[in-house]
Amino acid sequence: MNTNTVSRIKFIKQPTSSAWLEQALANLDTILLDHSHCERKAAGVALNLMFRYPSSTKLVRTLTAIAQEELQHFEQVNQWLERRGIPLARLDAPPYGSELNKQIRRNEPQRMLDFLLVYSLIEARSHERLGLLGAHCPDVELAKFYRGLMASEARHYGYYWILATTYFETEVVNERLEELSEIESNILSNPFPKPRIHS
Amino acid sequence: MNTNTVSRIKFIKQPTSSAWLEQALANLDTILLDHSHCERKAAGVALNLMFRYPSSTKLVRTLTAIAQEELQHFEQVNQWLERRGIPLARLDAPPYGSELNKQIRRNEPQRMLDFLLVYSLIEARSHERLGLLGAHCPDVELAKFYRGLMASEARHYGYYWILATTYFETEVVNERLEELSEIESNILSNPFPKPRIHS
Repeated sequence: MNTNTVSRIKFIKQPTSSAWLEQALANLDTILLDHSHCERKAAGVALNLMFRYPSSTKLVRTLTAIAQEELQHFEQVNQWLERRGIPLARLDAPPYGSELNKQIRRNEPQRMLDFLLVYSLIEARSHERLGLLGAHCPDVELAKFYRGLMASEARHYGYYWILATTYFETEVVNERLEELSEIESNILSNPFPKPRIHS
Repeated sequence: MNTNTVSRIKFIKQPTSSAWLEQALANLDTILLDHSHCERKAAGVALNLMFRYPSSTKLVRTLTAIAQEELQHFEQVNQWLERRGIPLARLDAPPYGSELNKQIRRNEPQRMLDFLLVYSLIEARSHERLGLLGAHCPDVELAKFYRGLMASEARHYGYYWILATTYFETEVVNERLEELSEIESNILSNPFPKPRIHS
């Protein structure tokens, strides 16, 4: 299965493996449930950043829009769960998010830059993987839903990147993005055994 | 100035004093800025509860709607700040929220009940105070805005109460609400010196 969509997503070093896609397609219910958690977490992340930087007007305005969209997606994914009779439930998370969060430096202003770039990378990867599900999911309606979400994720990773370049020099942003995207691909090169959006 | 709207809000033991209203009307810009923080915090609270109880379908569904509305209000209050040329800025919070949070018992299922009732009370008090601002604010447009929000806050405290009665016996809910609403009014009987929504 060809999973190489990476040429279109400049932030991502290594494309998702076909093994991930095969595992995801064989476990669509679990992927949907994990996806629900991802959307809630994405809304939480946007809101947390607003709590950290409440005086940064452009950041607050952009993240308000992102959080609203993520909550809308959360609602939509939960409707898909309901339609398929999958009850809401906890799922153990892959190490992806926590490993990336470890890369966030503790001192400002580096911390703000790292937050924005890590979230941009997570959105970029989500965009890539929802795109794969949109292209290969055998359920036509669900595939259409994934393709719709994919466009939002693309905007979101762009928004985080624009915020980074709003508050930091483009050269500094690009240099740090280079480092972080290397790490992001490395984390995924050691796959989490269970089917997850970011396994 | 008559501030006794408490007869309409059964959750509230003591009505807001006219001193609060006078201080708020004399400091509308600060009140608007604090209000922005309150809306963001309210969205954060709804989201946090979903993180704690991700498998409770009715709770998740209701809180998704509340979080979406609070984010919409956050955006609207921020537009008011912009219109009045007030930059986003940090503000020290009154002890109201942290004092109420201290009342939340640590063990489940009491913790869930207390979360729901504390947030219901905060929404009920916001409803009361936004109603006072809506009735007495000299800026006609801003007064109209407050009256619009007031209706949502009323729905929100109702939603939290309904969730409480969904997961707990009505008698248990009413008994604990009685205790907490006594405490809520006591906290406010010792006013925070600076103008705040919950001072």
